[in-house]
Amino acid sequence: MTPRGILESVVYADDLDAAERFYSRILELPVVSREPGRHVFFRSGASIFLVFRPEATASRVVLPGNVAVPAHGARGPGDVAFRVLEAELSGWRDRLKTEGVPVEAEVAWPRGGRSLYFRDPAGNSIELATPALWGMTEE
Amino acid sequence: MTPRGILESVVYADDLDAAERFYSRILELPVVSREPGRHVFFRSGASIFLVFRPEATASRVVLPGNVAVPAHGARGPGDVAFRVLEAELSGWRDRLKTEGVPVEAEVAWPRGGRSLYFRDPAGNSIELATPALWGMTEE
Repeated sequence: MTPRGILESVVYADDLDAAERFYSRILELPVVSREPGRHVFFRSGASIFLVFRPEATASRVVLPGNVAVPAHGARGPGDVAFRVLEAELSGWRDRLKTEGVPVEAEVAWPRGGRSLYFRDPAGNSIELATPALWGMTEE
Repeated sequence: MTPRGILESVVYADDLDAAERFYSRILELPVVSREPGRHVFFRSGASIFLVFRPEATASRVVLPGNVAVPAHGARGPGDVAFRVLEAELSGWRDRLKTEGVPVEAEVAWPRGGRSLYFRDPAGNSIELATPALWGMTEE
């Protein structure tokens, strides 16, 4: 028995408005949940991408219905990789350039696949990677 | 143009051996890459789950072939959710109990779906969640 994959990935940001603008505009991720001062959640394919303000999640939260959600909240730059199509890489480079987001690195991996790295406003390392990096097919 | 989903999710751990034992045994995730002192990577469905030792990634790393990978590395408890089947939830509860992993919380979400929360050896908050939580189907 093993999980079917990853359902939610997390990064942290103190400025949720800046995070929402960034991920909405640069990656065109639709917002699926927003709680000012605590979080903004996005959908990406079959996954949910969660951005939390660590100050708000560092202690256990009791939600309506007496639901206690465990505390978490990391500090410092996190990391997440989004799956992109090989054929769209040049489009991503163009968009980042147009939007003034510096590409920190571009890697052509020895075993195949490519990654573009940049930073979100909170300093998290964001990667756009082709699934060939892990020997996976595109769809 | 938007990504096709999340390819890699990350948590951090100082003790990579403990992390490898935990994720191999409790979640039965296969290891896809291991670099002692730096990382252990697992596959989960169509995603890769990365566990890094933050001390090793906090400065820019130049890999063979002069490939520079940007620095990252957060401190404090992170968070990730794995996708599990509704029908397997009781099996997961049994396994966690058998393995001596305390369930920190179990949540039945108001809009559907359930989550089981526990901790990995590094203190990260690990969630097993059914996709109904996000209005998604199981496959």
